[in-house]
Amino acid sequence: MESVKGMALLSCWVSPYGLRCKIGLAEKAVEYEYREENLMDKSALLLQANPVHKKVPVLIHDGRAICESLLILYYIDEVCATGSPLLPADPYARAQARFWADFADKKIFDAGINMVKSKGEAAAEAREVLVEGLKTLEGELGEKAYFGGEGFGFVDIVVAPIIAWRNAFEKYGGFTLEAEAPKLVAWGKRCVAERETVAQALPDGQKVVGFVGSFRKFLVVCLLLSCSMDQIYECGTRLWKLKGEAHQEAKKEFIEILKVVEAELGDRKYFGGDAFGYVDIALVPFFAWFYTYETCGGFSVEAEAPKLVAWGKRCMERESVSQTLYDPLKVYEFVCSLKKKYGIE
Amino acid sequence: MESVKGMALLSCWVSPYGLRCKIGLAEKAVEYEYREENLMDKSALLLQANPVHKKVPVLIHDGRAICESLLILYYIDEVCATGSPLLPADPYARAQARFWADFADKKIFDAGINMVKSKGEAAAEAREVLVEGLKTLEGELGEKAYFGGEGFGFVDIVVAPIIAWRNAFEKYGGFTLEAEAPKLVAWGKRCVAERETVAQALPDGQKVVGFVGSFRKFLVVCLLLSCSMDQIYECGTRLWKLKGEAHQEAKKEFIEILKVVEAELGDRKYFGGDAFGYVDIALVPFFAWFYTYETCGGFSVEAEAPKLVAWGKRCMERESVSQTLYDPLKVYEFVCSLKKKYGIE
Repeated sequence: MESVKGMALLSCWVSPYGLRCKIGLAEKAVEYEYREENLMDKSALLLQANPVHKKVPVLIHDGRAICESLLILYYIDEVCATGSPLLPADPYARAQARFWADFADKKIFDAGINMVKSKGEAAAEAREVLVEGLKTLEGELGEKAYFGGEGFGFVDIVVAPIIAWRNAFEKYGGFTLEAEAPKLVAWGKRCVAERETVAQALPDGQKVVGFVGSFRKFLVVCLLLSCSMDQIYECGTRLWKLKGEAHQEAKKEFIEILKVVEAELGDRKYFGGDAFGYVDIALVPFFAWFYTYETCGGFSVEAEAPKLVAWGKRCMERESVSQTLYDPLKVYEFVCSLKKKYGIE
Repeated sequence: MESVKGMALLSCWVSPYGLRCKIGLAEKAVEYEYREENLMDKSALLLQANPVHKKVPVLIHDGRAICESLLILYYIDEVCATGSPLLPADPYARAQARFWADFADKKIFDAGINMVKSKGEAAAEAREVLVEGLKTLEGELGEKAYFGGEGFGFVDIVVAPIIAWRNAFEKYGGFTLEAEAPKLVAWGKRCVAERETVAQALPDGQKVVGFVGSFRKFLVVCLLLSCSMDQIYECGTRLWKLKGEAHQEAKKEFIEILKVVEAELGDRKYFGGDAFGYVDIALVPFFAWFYTYETCGGFSVEAEAPKLVAWGKRCMERESVSQTLYDPLKVYEFVCSLKKKYGIE
């Protein structure tokens, strides 16, 4: 983290926890560098800065990392004398602000994200927590202009990302905020109209809906595979590392995975449909490994999963993919050097 | 809350979140009144002070309530000039202390309590989070005497209740802290030996094991009933509020509940076995309602569930029960007045 001078925020454009940090930093008029993280391929800096949770947002200040969005807001409020104070000066008012911030974390954002990530009963339970949470939060707002009273304050900063996530929560929760908590809707419009810090930080609600839709498809793939991406890698590793019966088992397992993934793709252009989406980003790195897997595994990916190979080629036509993917031959050479190192023939 | 002068802590002797507040208040050398809450029958003061979560601990200071244990610690650190400062003075060190406090909440106490409350896969998942959390926490402690370094500090206060909960977590998690995180064991012994604030605040580990055992039996009853205590009350209410078919349905449902509860009691003296325990405390208030239920429902509880009636009488021989339970006739009169109020014949 030595390379970071001053302040840097590692986040992802869609993270509500990261968005509140952006707003807080703008409120404090802090100069900082923004680094967008790809959550499917986290940077070494992020993993080093937040080894415990490996999550965004992380604030790096003079080479030291501060994790957890509320703690980042507390921190910048303590170290930066510029801009508006975020927390009120009175200890009881501070405790109240922290209470509602904690409430928003647990009952709004954690619950809402749980809801869009889940199905069936789990989704219904999370939805209930979210809708109840929104109503309780509206009760706290009452007739005030902002949670902070007349002025935009700490709780407003913490809750503001709901403005961008609202459409996604409504779509996957099957409710409208207007019906459940109309004062929150009015508050959201007020924040965007009156606070440039909010208007500038938040992405478009429909873009968030698109992200959540792709993410849900990605989760379906993981669920179908009944395994995480790490496990696919692990199975691929067994393909080139093991011999005899264990190798045969890994081969069988790997071909099954390929077929399940191909079935999920179906006849679509991309996993995202006509558009290259989240699932495509998640899966495309494997394409660079196909040559290695089939060479070490003694099978043909094209024969087992032709649509998947066609999809991989289609992805490679995109500059974003072709520029970042490793050359399949380089991957193979790399694996051969590993085999030598481990003393595998 | 007007009746509370100075500071009062509403808590329950076993709550790890309440225990850390006790330690923090002792570290700050704060004079306060301690009010023990019965979690099965929360006081009006608690419900008024924490209407959102209805949970202990709550600190009441000059008539104003502060909820959430970490926020209580922040608050007393800000308002009380007495005793040791809880958080370090340096903003980065504060952020780190808050990070590990948040970590202990999520990965140790929330996970551990989830584990002892759950069965099967959910319990196994929570166990994994807990054991991983303990190892990570030990890594943070490293070779230091305390999490705060040489001195006992904020993170030590927050984590200390693990010393009292350790036996319960070990018993229901099937692991030993000595094997998983031996440095944490040594740290715990150090805290108890060197800090009177810790030694005085924490209950005996075996008493916590006893509590958790009773609580798990209570959960079994809830699970057997497939309903919460609120739902039993609700069904009882339908008994006296409704007429005709709906009344007959409520009656059938209520008798079923009585039989399930009686089957769970079996031939034991108490739900807790030979000792009057948590489940007994939870269920005994219903005994005062039996007369009302049978009179309004047109059935005899004694005929349907004789062992349950015998159990209720046994409970009434205990002064703690007979002194706190309403007179069954008073309950009936109360319900009759309600019926009149609602215009039910």
